[in-house]
Amino acid sequence: MPLTGQSIIAGVAHPGTGGSFTAVDPRTGGPLGPEISCLAPDEVHLATRAAAEAFPAYRATSPSDRADFLEAIAEEIEALGDELLERAHAESALPLARLQGERGRTCGQLRMFAGVVRQGDHLGVRIDPALPERAPLPRPDLRVRHLPLGPVAVFGASNFPLAFSTAGGDTASALAAGCPVVVKAHNAHPGTGELVGQAIARAAERSGMPAGVFSLVFGLGTEVGAALVTDPHIQAVGFTGSRAGGLALVAAAAGRPQPIPVYAEMSSTNPVIVLEGALAGDPEPLAAGYVASLTLGSGQFCTNPGLLFLPEGPAGDAFLAAVEQAAASATGQTMLTPQIRAAFGTGTARLGAHPSVQTIAQGLAGGDDNAPAPVVFTTRLAALADDHGLTEEIFGAAGLVVRFGDVARLADHLAGLEGQLTATIHATEADHAEAAALLPVLETRAGRILFNGWPTGVEVTHAMVHGGPFPATSDSRTTSVGSLAIERFQRPVCYQDVPAGLLPAPVRDDNPWGLRRRIDGELEPRP
Amino acid sequence: MPLTGQSIIAGVAHPGTGGSFTAVDPRTGGPLGPEISCLAPDEVHLATRAAAEAFPAYRATSPSDRADFLEAIAEEIEALGDELLERAHAESALPLARLQGERGRTCGQLRMFAGVVRQGDHLGVRIDPALPERAPLPRPDLRVRHLPLGPVAVFGASNFPLAFSTAGGDTASALAAGCPVVVKAHNAHPGTGELVGQAIARAAERSGMPAGVFSLVFGLGTEVGAALVTDPHIQAVGFTGSRAGGLALVAAAAGRPQPIPVYAEMSSTNPVIVLEGALAGDPEPLAAGYVASLTLGSGQFCTNPGLLFLPEGPAGDAFLAAVEQAAASATGQTMLTPQIRAAFGTGTARLGAHPSVQTIAQGLAGGDDNAPAPVVFTTRLAALADDHGLTEEIFGAAGLVVRFGDVARLADHLAGLEGQLTATIHATEADHAEAAALLPVLETRAGRILFNGWPTGVEVTHAMVHGGPFPATSDSRTTSVGSLAIERFQRPVCYQDVPAGLLPAPVRDDNPWGLRRRIDGELEPRP
Repeated sequence: MPLTGQSIIAGVAHPGTGGSFTAVDPRTGGPLGPEISCLAPDEVHLATRAAAEAFPAYRATSPSDRADFLEAIAEEIEALGDELLERAHAESALPLARLQGERGRTCGQLRMFAGVVRQGDHLGVRIDPALPERAPLPRPDLRVRHLPLGPVAVFGASNFPLAFSTAGGDTASALAAGCPVVVKAHNAHPGTGELVGQAIARAAERSGMPAGVFSLVFGLGTEVGAALVTDPHIQAVGFTGSRAGGLALVAAAAGRPQPIPVYAEMSSTNPVIVLEGALAGDPEPLAAGYVASLTLGSGQFCTNPGLLFLPEGPAGDAFLAAVEQAAASATGQTMLTPQIRAAFGTGTARLGAHPSVQTIAQGLAGGDDNAPAPVVFTTRLAALADDHGLTEEIFGAAGLVVRFGDVARLADHLAGLEGQLTATIHATEADHAEAAALLPVLETRAGRILFNGWPTGVEVTHAMVHGGPFPATSDSRTTSVGSLAIERFQRPVCYQDVPAGLLPAPVRDDNPWGLRRRIDGELEPRP
Repeated sequence: MPLTGQSIIAGVAHPGTGGSFTAVDPRTGGPLGPEISCLAPDEVHLATRAAAEAFPAYRATSPSDRADFLEAIAEEIEALGDELLERAHAESALPLARLQGERGRTCGQLRMFAGVVRQGDHLGVRIDPALPERAPLPRPDLRVRHLPLGPVAVFGASNFPLAFSTAGGDTASALAAGCPVVVKAHNAHPGTGELVGQAIARAAERSGMPAGVFSLVFGLGTEVGAALVTDPHIQAVGFTGSRAGGLALVAAAAGRPQPIPVYAEMSSTNPVIVLEGALAGDPEPLAAGYVASLTLGSGQFCTNPGLLFLPEGPAGDAFLAAVEQAAASATGQTMLTPQIRAAFGTGTARLGAHPSVQTIAQGLAGGDDNAPAPVVFTTRLAALADDHGLTEEIFGAAGLVVRFGDVARLADHLAGLEGQLTATIHATEADHAEAAALLPVLETRAGRILFNGWPTGVEVTHAMVHGGPFPATSDSRTTSVGSLAIERFQRPVCYQDVPAGLLPAPVRDDNPWGLRRRIDGELEPRP
């Protein structure tokens, strides 16, 4: 099916009256057709109404039908073949090999959620049987299951045009929970968005799902997104992007007559702490690992190690020298958009000109205007206390190495850091006493704690947390990656003395879905 | 220990500079000493700082030590003996027998949470073991556990001076999760609050808990509460009370530099739907049940059945006649405060004067100025569509019976109702087709659905949901009653490749706490 440049409303291409734009090849600045026809803010309700109409039927689907749908989406995305990868490559400048891996991750997480839906533990079924003989009053029969919240608005990320965009983690987990989804297409990769949107629409049709279970809307500026978040049919929001963008959606959602949850994954500098023992050997592998993580994907990861804390002294100096050497041969890759590249330029110029900051390593610029050289700066811990702006995220391959003298003082500093997605310690056994003292501090500041690794690379699995205290996310109680994410889009409902014939399947005595249930507070074995 | 009328900051009585007030006996309007010394808003930080200082040690307590502490609180409350009941009776006018039951519930829920803490399922441990041989990249070792959010501010309810106040459900679940608690004492029962606060402080001391794990602060007006919610140490808020009060706290929390979750349980009219079959027999038991639930505790329950939908026609008329008779002999009990009684008067006067509303039943006033007569109004479904104000909650023993002709039209109306704590259907088997059609509508509108019972009376157990869509609560994803409430005060943290010797106990391979863990997505049997 060719690209139409139109929104997809409940399976049907839909032109809008909200203006138009054309995608841009970030390597050349040249246009990538077709022209994209945008909805006006007052046309968004077409998608949300379709989602609301689809909700009763979609939430009532059996685990097996819903799981089949998720798997059908994965199949339809794979069936797009090279066309999808080539379009995503043209729109994002991300290497084809990376996009191939990202497609695998996208389809893998859809299939993981299919498995979660079939297994059913997320329904959190609890049964407290009636106690008719209890004195002074009998206890009624009580049964809990979780229900989906309702239609969800999803705002994808520029840096994951597949795995965190149209059919990305938020869409997969919301659909798995039983929520229809309306995606606001990312304007940095509209063609990729439409191709994936068409794949989801095809999957919905062949799986017999109500068409309104999925829509994709194009819009200019921020008004269409605001219209989506304030639409009364929308019951939750998933967002991955900038802090300003996320906070605007949080404020819009809080200002509704009926406030709704917003899961915004916003910004993080992902502190890495190198302890003395980790510097005892050859500094080169550690430095190479750091530079590789820092420059991966042009540094355009929310888990990019933007801050590295390094001991003062000769071992730290040797590590820095090795970083300088490794960074010198690192070549900039084309960034996702000219705007992101411009912000990188502003951020690195600000740091480079800061009186307390030295530029210690510089790589090579890439082959076009949007491929700036990776850069590493250094400063001292005391300077951070004087200027909190030093630790602001610079999206891209820019690192700040902070030298510290004393681990206790470092711990004090870390305790005051903003919330983070990740925190990493490099340590050997000789450092364990110091690491043990840092751990409780990092637990309060980050959603994931790593040892002797690098934060880029987020496993899509059951024990992943991609989240963290504000402002890393707007809601630290959840994750946006991994199977636990399904719980974000649910609420519990209790059934008291509901007649057996009227009970919904998950809480029926005959347990037709084969769920593991909590009876009087204790989990049953799986039937 | 005698009442001091002072705040309890980390175990120590603390006078304030924020003015003073004296408790009032709602039956007489007379004062109940001692004078209560209030903190000024800028003194609240004494309590929150103590809570923040206690947090690292308190959250590190073992399940057994923390459970012992919760049980010690129950014991210390019981050790207060009749003094507590008499003070609560004097301050609230609630009957002694009711307060005795409420004390049992209060201590029962503390002990239930002790059991939850010992069992440990709330920690949600997940382990995805490393896959060093996986291609193209090895999988790291990933482990998740849940951590407490941090210090919690609790605002208790006037209508449950024990079970939903100082040591009530929010305090018990937050302490169980590992969060220190700062309670803003309710000014309708300050002496009761201080007695219970002293009991908690004694329990903390004898259990070896850090003193800052609990504080109780007195304050005038709304400024002290606002100071608490906007204090940077506070990481979550529990509230039970009016919609205006809850929404003010939600707004204050959202306006913080770091927004925090607010769990506000606010208002609900708890619709009861009577279907034809339920009217087929003798109407008297049903009418008696309704009037008993409506007038229980002077109607001062968040689950009071304020709205009852009744079929038009002779069977409904007969039910109404039976209601009139049952209500005629119902005597008003003293309400909690003169303010609540005044609001009841305003609300019932407004309904009584409404051109579409008839007063159909009136009980007897009680023996003092604060004990108004229960009252039942009636109107037609069409009138509700014209004036949404008709369905506003009137806190107290006032019911509105809404006559409907057609269940399909009723379903449309219910779909547009505000979020509710409960929804109830009275039906016999002959009504099941109609009930089945109503159920999905009610599921989207309420947190608990009952059949052939009355919503007052909330079991404190594992399968209870006392929550619901906005504005019943500010966060439909949780419950404020029952063991599931512990999850409100937690966030997940992931440990990636953390050395065995540094892992926290819940995620260690040797599983020292005997937890049930989810390995690669599947729950293990309990060890």
